[in-house]
Formats: sequence, structure tokens, C-alpha cells
Amino acid sequence: MENWRSSAHRLLRLCSNHPSGYRFSRMVRKSAHSEVLCRHEGAFTQIQPPILQKKRHFELYSHHLPLRWVIGKTPGTQSRYFCFMATKIERNSTFAQLNSDDISYFKKFLGEKNVIQEEDALLAANIDWMHKYRGSSKLLLQPRSTEEVSQILKYCNSRRLAVVPQGGNTGLVGGSVPVFDEVIVNVSLMNNIISFDKVSGVLVCEAGCILENLISFLDNQGFIMPLDLGAKGSCQIGGNVSTNAGGLRLLRYGSLHGNVLGLEAVTANGEVLDMLSTLRKDNTGYDLKHLFIGSEGSLGIVTKVSILTPPKLSSVNVAFLACKDYFSCQKLLLEAKRKLGEILSAFEFLDEQSMTLALNYLEGVRNPLPPPLHNFYILIETTGSNESYDKEKLEAFLLGAMERDLISDGIVAQDIQQASSVWRIREGIPEALTRAGVTYKYDLSLPVDKINDLVKEMRNRLGNLATVVAYGHLGDGNLHLNISASQYDDAILAQIEPFVYEWTSKNQGSISAEHGLGLMKANKILYSKSPLTVQVMASIKKLLDPNGILNPYKVLPQSMVA
Amino acid sequence: MENWRSSAHRLLRLCSNHPSGYRFSRMVRKSAHSEVLCRHEGAFTQIQPPILQKKRHFELYSHHLPLRWVIGKTPGTQSRYFCFMATKIERNSTFAQLNSDDISYFKKFLGEKNVIQEEDALLAANIDWMHKYRGSSKLLLQPRSTEEVSQILKYCNSRRLAVVPQGGNTGLVGGSVPVFDEVIVNVSLMNNIISFDKVSGVLVCEAGCILENLISFLDNQGFIMPLDLGAKGSCQIGGNVSTNAGGLRLLRYGSLHGNVLGLEAVTANGEVLDMLSTLRKDNTGYDLKHLFIGSEGSLGIVTKVSILTPPKLSSVNVAFLACKDYFSCQKLLLEAKRKLGEILSAFEFLDEQSMTLALNYLEGVRNPLPPPLHNFYILIETTGSNESYDKEKLEAFLLGAMERDLISDGIVAQDIQQASSVWRIREGIPEALTRAGVTYKYDLSLPVDKINDLVKEMRNRLGNLATVVAYGHLGDGNLHLNISASQYDDAILAQIEPFVYEWTSKNQGSISAEHGLGLMKANKILYSKSPLTVQVMASIKKLLDPNGILNPYKVLPQSMVA
Repeated sequence: MENWRSSAHRLLRLCSNHPSGYRFSRMVRKSAHSEVLCRHEGAFTQIQPPILQKKRHFELYSHHLPLRWVIGKTPGTQSRYFCFMATKIERNSTFAQLNSDDISYFKKFLGEKNVIQEEDALLAANIDWMHKYRGSSKLLLQPRSTEEVSQILKYCNSRRLAVVPQGGNTGLVGGSVPVFDEVIVNVSLMNNIISFDKVSGVLVCEAGCILENLISFLDNQGFIMPLDLGAKGSCQIGGNVSTNAGGLRLLRYGSLHGNVLGLEAVTANGEVLDMLSTLRKDNTGYDLKHLFIGSEGSLGIVTKVSILTPPKLSSVNVAFLACKDYFSCQKLLLEAKRKLGEILSAFEFLDEQSMTLALNYLEGVRNPLPPPLHNFYILIETTGSNESYDKEKLEAFLLGAMERDLISDGIVAQDIQQASSVWRIREGIPEALTRAGVTYKYDLSLPVDKINDLVKEMRNRLGNLATVVAYGHLGDGNLHLNISASQYDDAILAQIEPFVYEWTSKNQGSISAEHGLGLMKANKILYSKSPLTVQVMASIKKLLDPNGILNPYKVLPQSMVA
Repeated sequence: MENWRSSAHRLLRLCSNHPSGYRFSRMVRKSAHSEVLCRHEGAFTQIQPPILQKKRHFELYSHHLPLRWVIGKTPGTQSRYFCFMATKIERNSTFAQLNSDDISYFKKFLGEKNVIQEEDALLAANIDWMHKYRGSSKLLLQPRSTEEVSQILKYCNSRRLAVVPQGGNTGLVGGSVPVFDEVIVNVSLMNNIISFDKVSGVLVCEAGCILENLISFLDNQGFIMPLDLGAKGSCQIGGNVSTNAGGLRLLRYGSLHGNVLGLEAVTANGEVLDMLSTLRKDNTGYDLKHLFIGSEGSLGIVTKVSILTPPKLSSVNVAFLACKDYFSCQKLLLEAKRKLGEILSAFEFLDEQSMTLALNYLEGVRNPLPPPLHNFYILIETTGSNESYDKEKLEAFLLGAMERDLISDGIVAQDIQQASSVWRIREGIPEALTRAGVTYKYDLSLPVDKINDLVKEMRNRLGNLATVVAYGHLGDGNLHLNISASQYDDAILAQIEPFVYEWTSKNQGSISAEHGLGLMKANKILYSKSPLTVQVMASIKKLLDPNGILNPYKVLPQSMVA
């Protein structure tokens, strides 16, 4: 193992000028709607105004559409276009327009200060994190209890006022902001921890609890949340559940469908569905809570959550490895699952192009491995209860992998600083992409053995037009496919779409691994779901929200739910 | 640790006359409908005719009802009573009666031999494992493909012929047998493994695959199923999914809602819903598969399953410990989760009364710990990838627990034989109960800190009338509450029901932790679910099965879906 040790020392030397670790002291901003923030695949980084300008140009003008079509507030019947592939949306004319009687009604039971009409506050709530989607809502309501949420929805449903549920507003697909003039219902004030049972590890809390606050609360109790996201400083557990957030711990702890034990949700007509079980086992009837997990607020507003939390484990180890080909990456994943089994907590990959970007554009980042560059890099993290056992287990696994020629080189981080530096490479790629130019970004799930096939095909299609950069959560089959170019160009886009969706569909992949459909991909659902299942979804939408007031224009094609 | 070692040696000595281990060579029968079998909490044991007679007496006559009311086949409008609390059910008169044209139609596309009308075969398919429920179906269909299932249901729906989906028929709540003359659709012939991906660990197979066959298949690949049941020799994966089977590995690997990645299901009108994703991450629309997990075949017939399988780990350790009080059991669970964390795979408990029964009624079972008896016993199992590390970790945990006075005595099994002997005590309790007399059995989920409160209250209520025996999956909050008596007595029953359901309900428990509702508890769902959620369930039932032909009389109260 001496080879590994010396590599690790090399890492330490090279990293001596690094900023403090990224993953272990990640910069996360709270409620920073008014700040210039850019989010990619779970990591937030503050970006400079010039870059933002370039980004806005991309996001808002990529189809050479005049600004007014995109974020302008045109009265009456409106139409809007959104990149990448333009989608025309018209306001549902069955929805009522807000009037002064409505405002008076809300003020009566919510109180003046929780019925928000100020322009600045509305501006922040009308725009998403990426500044890509912008609604024109004139009203933001902040209920303090489930009963108030119920009363709001009951009224809105009877009046046919459309509603957009909003948590931390950290979504990436335009799901959490109005499209037109929907009433924004933000549950931020419902942020109480209701109970925590140290024996079972079950936490019950209100939907507005910020994820990071829950993580801190649990840390004091010796537990962790089964999910962790770059957006944790702002995102709320109700939003996490409503979007079935994936994040960094999915490989180890599984999805929210497995970890959420219970929910309370309010349906469009104001009925409160009490599904707030705290039990690991409960086979009494249909498990309705799963309908609300990942339905992006279109079936109901989640108001309380019960979640199973794992105990906190003290030992974390990180290795950064090089593989000569994608087949070796796959074999390594198999071996890691088998040999590291119960302690494996991350298996991330990046390709040579990703590494090149990181080295060229991320300040202070150095390659922990000597040149030349390798075709693929794998980041493995283990989390367990005994540091020396875990370290030895990891090293034995690595020795075996080297003997089988699965890895060409690698290092094991010797402390948190080194581990942070390694994570910085992986998590810094989105930032590097932003600095390198413009990016066409795709968040795809694919069978692990197909991932590199798509990357290769995309490179063939694009030739010298753009650079294809591939990285992601290989352990979860989640590819972040990024096409980097100097500027947006319809010729490039035409080579990517709809090819990327069609290829993903043909290979039984998902066009949204963890970001959801929102407004951006509502009309693309058929790439990943069969027409019959989408019809059933639409029937369920109509059953639970007959007037379609909840988060309209999102998740499902408008034509199927109108 | 020498104390533990010597205890283990004592176990070895005492166990020298044992039959071979129970858990590691569990006796499971395949398709043994015609044999005298009795199943309790996941374990099958062959019981002697005299005991069966007593059992039948209990199950069929406990309300002093004449046999004809219970299993008799009375023509026309029928009514039936089932213990414990009698439930009157009438045949839904909107359902058609089978005629010769129907038979001819089915024979045309299923072939003669898959349209079964022979009395013996029908008898087996009409009776459940426990011989507690018996239907009077005249037709058993055995489709060979999804298309055939679809064609059957399309026809039955158009004709309003009621259908009961059947897998291995190992359910315990009367969910898998007809109540009246429903057509039985058994998917046993659909038993192909479709694919297995060693990199992702995703298995795709047909619904009729027997669980044990899947376990064997995966074993050869170095993987395991994330669920394991006593019924594995007969139960089928489609049935497991349809009933959201819990089993022995839930503590470690979680429920099927987390592990099932995709499903194919046929709805009542014959439509095939393709939800057969093999992806860990897919956030494109409502995750409909969860509706079919645990809905007991009342929303559709599951025809294919995609499931995430964990890699097989080589090291298994077992400890058997004594605790002086229930509070210590809870603290021990907390410590085990924290210290054993990633390797903890079982945390089972039994009380003094359970141990007394095991010692008195199970042949060859000896107490591995010296007298006197302790108030509680805990069985801890770890499963990991490195035997020496895991053993040391377990012993360090035990030492800490002893130092904190959480455990009064205990042993660590030194080999599989010893581990089997310890498991035999825990898993033999249902058998011991059967030998001791008659049993009122309740499968409950409760917050862990409430479990012993119910046991104590039950003891207070019953006094000398009966013996209260408590054991179960403490790590999952699953109590198997058993009231043991010399004979059935309405005075005892009146002390138990509805108290046990009311108490469970009041304490946010579930009246069915893992067995489902079936016919037995369809009318008791409101003890565990709110009226509004049950209404939504009924609406979904009507949406997906407007004629109510799928598994009628089960899961939901008849009055809500008629």
C-alpha cells in the first residue's frame, strides 16, 4: 500500500495552496433570492456578474426571442417561450383573476403581514434560483399552520384561483415559481421540529424546515438526514419530499420513497390528508404518501414530514482513482459494492474532459495524480463506524483492484483537507464549465453500462462543434452530460435535441434523474413514461385536483389535464 | 471478553443435542397446499393433526358459529363469518356468474390445460395456507404472459366477472383466495428471470418467480434479495410486491417501496401499465408503482418486477443478550444502531414469557444463559464484509453495553450451529405457542417506546385468564403480541378486542405491520388510517377498477367501494 500512501502525500503537497475543502465546508447561502447565485447538480457557487450576464443571455435569449416574450409581463392572454426547446404556454382561461375581495379574505385569517403584495418580496418569489423562469404573481401567502394552508386552498379552489406551492425555491426546472399570476403559497413559516425519537431515529417536522437546520438538529442527537444537497442552506424538507430530491447520500441510504415514513398533505379542495405515520412497517391500505413524493406540489401541499434518519457514523475515507477505460469503471463499481458493501457511501465518476476543465478553470485545483491524464477518474467515499477497519478495508479493496488492473493509479486521502480537495475536483466541474463558456446541461439516468455509449455518440455527433463533458453519480446511474461551447448556437442544439431525449428513451433511461419535470420538461414526460401511465397520472391529477389549480402547467402535459 | 467466550462455549455444550439450526436450514415447503401447515410470522412448521384440529376449532368456531356459516358453500346470496370479530359479507350482486361461454372463451387463448376446473386443483387454490379462509371458485386460470393476463382481465371486466389474483397463496389475512366464486388468476407460470445487471444489481423478472428461486439465482451471482421470508419456498415476487412483504431483512435493507425500482401491472380493464424502470433515479411524473406495492392485487395484477439487489456479504455474527428491563432494550437498540451501524442486520426481542414457552415446548432448545430467567432477551445479528472486523466491532459494542449496565448477560455465537440455535429460540416461539394451547395473535407496529406499555396493559386486563407473550422485530417496531390460553373463550376475546386495536390506534400504531388487510381486516382499516385517506383510497380503487372486479371484499370496507 506504500504506493497509495506516497500518492496521498503528493496530494497533500500539491494541495497546500488550496482553499479550504469544498465538500466539508461547502458554501451555502440561506434565502439568498436577491443574490447572484448559480446552482449546478447540487452545488451552489457565487458567480461573477459577467458570467451571470452570459448565463442570462443563454437562458433567456437562446432562441433569439425578444426579452418581453420571456420574462416580460404582458397582460391578458400571454405566451412564453423557454429554452432549450421552445414551449408555448397559454394561461388557463378557466382560472379566476385575483381581486380585492380575495386579498381581504386572506388578510382576515392570515394577518396583514403574511399576505404579501410588496414588489420586492414578490420579485424574489416570482423568479427561480437560476433566473431562468419568472412569473407575475401579485400575491404571496405565508401560512403558519396546516389549517391555514387548508383554508387557503379551500378558498382558492372555490374561486378557481391557481396556486403555486413554494418552499425554498431551489428547484432547477421551473417547478417552484408561478408561470403566470398564480398565488404563491410559501410554507417557510411552518418550520417547527415536532418530535424526534432517538430509539427509532424518526424525525417529524413541518414542511418549511430548512434541510440544513434539520441536519444540525440531528447532528446534536448523533443522527444524520438520509439526504444531503448542495442547496441544503435554503431548500426545505417539504420541497425535498415534493420533488423526491436525490442528492449525495442516495447511493447509501436510498431514495425518499424508502426513507419518508409519513406525510401530511393538503389537497386542492383544502382537505388535510393525515398520512403522518412514524412506523417503519404499516401495511394497512394503499400507501398514498408516495403519490405526493415527487409530484412537485401538483397533487397537494406537503405540510408535515416524518422521516427515518440513520445514526451518524464517525469514519469517512476518500479515494481518488484513475481508470483506463469505462469498462474498468463498471468493474470497479461492482467490486466496490461487493468489497466495501456496507461502508460504500459514494461512487462518483468524471472523464478526462471534466478533469481538464477542473484543472484549467478552478483556482488552486491540482491533479493529485501525476501526468498524463487518464480517461476516467473515480471518487470513492466510505462511511462507517470504525476508522481503522474502514481504512484497511478500503486499502485491501484498492490493492485487489490494482492487482486486477482495474485502476491505473490513485490516492487515498489522509485527512479531511485532502478529502475536501478531491471532492473539490468532482464538485467543482459545474463551476469550471460555467467559467469555460456556455453549457447545454442534461441530467440523465441510464443503465450504468450505457452511460459512456451516449457520451461517445454525442462526441461523434458534435465533432469539433463543442466539447462533451461527462461526470456524475455512477453508483446511482446518474450521468450529468454537459456540452460546453464558446457560445450558444442553434447548430449545436440541433445536434443535441431531441437526440439526447430519444437516445435516453430508447435505452430505458430517464430524462430527469433527480431534478423533476417542472415547467421545463412537462411536455417531455413521454420520453420516459408510457402514454398509458401518463394517462393514469392525469386521471389521478383530475381526481385530486379537479379544477387543476395546484401548480398548473407543470409535471404533466397541459393537454392531458385541461 | 472472556465472559462472552465462556458463555458461548456453554451454548455450544448445551446445544450439542439440538436439531440442526432453524434459521440456516429452515424447513420450507413448496406448493404444499394439501399438507397440514401452519405459518406464524414468517416461519412455517409442520404441525401434528391434533394441534391442527384444535387450531381449526379456534379459527372456524370461535364464535360458536355453525361450520356452514364459515366454510360451507351455500348457494345464491351467501353470508360468511370470520374470526376473530365476526364480519358479515354478502356476495356483490353486480358480479356475473360464470357460464360455459366464458370457459370456451378462456380455453381459446389460454389452452385447455391452463383453464382449470378440476376439483382437487380448485380446492387447493380456494383455501389459504392457514385453512382459515375458503372460497368456492369454479375456475382457475394460469396465464403464461402479460398479454394473457391482459386478455383475461379485459374479458372479465366486460363481463363483470370478479377476479382474485393469486401468487404463492401464502398470505395470512385471506387476501389471496376467493371469498365467493371469483375467478382465480394464478401467475405461477410466469416465472422467468428476464435480466440481471451485475453492475447495478438490478434484477428484472416475471411476477410468478418463487422468492427462493430468485435467492438461489442471485446467490450464484454474488447478490442477495433485499427481502427474505419464511414462506420463500412458495411465495412469489409478484405477491411479495403486491403485499409489500416485510420479512427478516427490512431493518437492514428497508421496505419494498425503497427496493422495487419498477413494475409492470395489468389494471382491471386489461390495460398494461409499463412502469418497469431499472433506474435508481427517475423523477419524471408521479411514481405510480407505489400504488401497486401493498395494494394486495386490488388495483391491478403485477406481472413483472424490477428490484435492486444488494451484494452478498460473507460475515454473519449473532449475539443473544439478556436485559433487566424494557428501557435497557431501547437503549441497547440505540447503541446498536450507532455502534454497529452499517453492519446491524437484525435486532429481535423476546420477553421472559416467550423464553419460558420456548424452553418448555421446543424440543432440544436450551437456555444459552444460566438461570434465573431475565425479563427480556435480545438477539442481535450483524452482516458485513469482513469477519474479524465485524466480530471485533460486535464485541466492542457488547463490552460498552455491559459497562453501561444495559445487558445483564449474553453470548456471542462462535459458529453457524450456535447462531442457528439462538435463532431457533426466537423463531420457534410461534411453534411453542401452538403447542402450549390456543393463541390470539396480533401483528402490530408501534413506536418502539410504546411496545411494552401495551404488553403491560394487556397483562393487567387479562390477569390470570391468559398468558401474554411478546416478541418481535424490535428494530422495526414490530410487535408480535400473542395471548396464550388453554382454550378459546369469549371472555378472553372481549378483554382483547377491540381494546388492542383501539390502543394501537391511539398510539399511532398500525394494526397490520406486515401481513396486510386482506379480507380479515378490510373493515378495520380506520383503526390505522384516517377516514379522508381511506376515501381517497376508495376513489383510486374506483378510478382504476370502476366495476370493482379485482380482489373484491378485500383491503377496503365494502361500503366505501361498492
